[in-house]
Amino acid sequence: MNDVYVGLDFGATKIYCVLAGKDGTVLTRSKVKTAKEADLDVIGKQLFDITNQALASMSLRMEDVSGIGIAVPSPVDHENGYIVHAPNFGAVNVPAKSTFEKIFGREVFLGNDANCGILAEHRFGAAKGSKSAVGFFVGTGVGGGIILDGTLYTSKKGVAGDLGHMIIKAGGRTCGCGNKGCLEAYSSKTAFGKRLNKLINERHKKSSISKVYNNDFSALKSSDLAKAYKNNDEVVCGVLRKGAYMLGLASANIITVLEPDCFVYGGGVMEALGNELFPYIRQGLEENLFGLKPGEVNIYLSSLGDDAVALGAAILPVYKIKA
Amino acid sequence: MNDVYVGLDFGATKIYCVLAGKDGTVLTRSKVKTAKEADLDVIGKQLFDITNQALASMSLRMEDVSGIGIAVPSPVDHENGYIVHAPNFGAVNVPAKSTFEKIFGREVFLGNDANCGILAEHRFGAAKGSKSAVGFFVGTGVGGGIILDGTLYTSKKGVAGDLGHMIIKAGGRTCGCGNKGCLEAYSSKTAFGKRLNKLINERHKKSSISKVYNNDFSALKSSDLAKAYKNNDEVVCGVLRKGAYMLGLASANIITVLEPDCFVYGGGVMEALGNELFPYIRQGLEENLFGLKPGEVNIYLSSLGDDAVALGAAILPVYKIKA
Repeated sequence: MNDVYVGLDFGATKIYCVLAGKDGTVLTRSKVKTAKEADLDVIGKQLFDITNQALASMSLRMEDVSGIGIAVPSPVDHENGYIVHAPNFGAVNVPAKSTFEKIFGREVFLGNDANCGILAEHRFGAAKGSKSAVGFFVGTGVGGGIILDGTLYTSKKGVAGDLGHMIIKAGGRTCGCGNKGCLEAYSSKTAFGKRLNKLINERHKKSSISKVYNNDFSALKSSDLAKAYKNNDEVVCGVLRKGAYMLGLASANIITVLEPDCFVYGGGVMEALGNELFPYIRQGLEENLFGLKPGEVNIYLSSLGDDAVALGAAILPVYKIKA
Repeated sequence: MNDVYVGLDFGATKIYCVLAGKDGTVLTRSKVKTAKEADLDVIGKQLFDITNQALASMSLRMEDVSGIGIAVPSPVDHENGYIVHAPNFGAVNVPAKSTFEKIFGREVFLGNDANCGILAEHRFGAAKGSKSAVGFFVGTGVGGGIILDGTLYTSKKGVAGDLGHMIIKAGGRTCGCGNKGCLEAYSSKTAFGKRLNKLINERHKKSSISKVYNNDFSALKSSDLAKAYKNNDEVVCGVLRKGAYMLGLASANIITVLEPDCFVYGGGVMEALGNELFPYIRQGLEENLFGLKPGEVNIYLSSLGDDAVALGAAILPVYKIKA
């Protein structure tokens, strides 16, 4: 049998696991809810358990695995094996690599989640064959990843590619990071929630999504957004279209910096509403484009969907990538 | 005698020429005003004449020159040898390389001016020794150039590095390119002129610079801005400090994309007022920084000053660089 790799993706709401071949074939996938207010030890135990269950379902043991990669919602300091800052876990400069290795009893590779996502999309998905590609992954926040000259672009402190914190409107909406006008303050589920709160609870707009959350929009699910959007809920449609437009504008910005061969849009929100939001991303891009004609820009939805990040994590050990 | 290279920098207001060694030593420098409403043939003739005068001053002939590089105020299409778009010369997709080669009777290398600027700063100037560097050059517009992994980063259509057209305030001031909220709409001499016009002619603010230009601020000189700034002219200080702040904010944005080792700020405005504006650039950077601490970002003023762009042009033929 061919080599089997474990790819794990832990986010604010769920942990996702794939067993995969180095060619990107997914052998099995599974997911579990992330424990609430968990520290790294608890997360590590969850990662270990879901991995063992996945292996058992394939009649495999941990010893049969050729490598383990874990995508984390934070920049990664590879020199020290640290998670630099994962706000949803209150984790700042924590030694994730050693913690997880202790639990797994073997080497694990860490990678930033969006970097893993674009890695997989570039190797197996929507950006396959391109020399340079930029990915935006829209979920609780907005993650970004950059491929240049066929290789993941990374930087000393792991900040390169954190495109959710590019400022697209100086003095604009306050972002979770404390800055004003970041892309993430317009185009993430967190941003959508804040905006819905303002429109519904402060400005008393009527929306079908009010009931679903009892007017507390602090933990939106993509599936609920999709339901309201597809029912033409005016408030939800307005908020999401604006977010998609800003994602297109941010892509136009990236062209002035890197002029990549293509862009890929993924993450939970795009999984749920990619086809619906794509025209608004395109509009934001085209209305703010500099130096290129609209036809000269290639934009794609993720083709790996929910697998993307975990699949990227799975190939970290294959190529010894520090993502 | 060692090899001698010609570096030419033609901009909206002046043509600048250096004769230089491949180690960056400047043997002689000279400048002349750019002919008004000139086409490429006229510019080419001016470039040829200033080169011959510079050579004559060193008792050299065109045959003694090892290579010629010309920096142009436009993205360059190297496949066709075209200037893609130089608004100040009404030039769109014009065959500059063949035009200049006909006039010079020999091969010339073209390069985008800001790309030449960061090339020289990286090889001989403020960014020397860095692995990655991003330059902003502030003059009539705002040019940008990017060094990654020790090499100039360029792209298919030459748009990569056109950082003046990164949008930092969606829906903000209208830029010469037609988009809204570009960096260039805040931090260029063109932007300063428009802003002074608004403040002085529409809002009737008092400024010492009114007299100098008879209230027509469409062609500001850095030297006049510097004079007014150093005399603490409130209106001019306000406009320039805001421009410098936005340049810092744009630098913070670049960190989320590339996290370069350093930033270099050059061009005519920085030559005239770099020391004065530097604290405001730093403020804009630090107040909008994501992921790094202020002490982790290296920012420098250009150390090559007016020579930077021409010197970068001079080394294009040395290393066969397509800038």
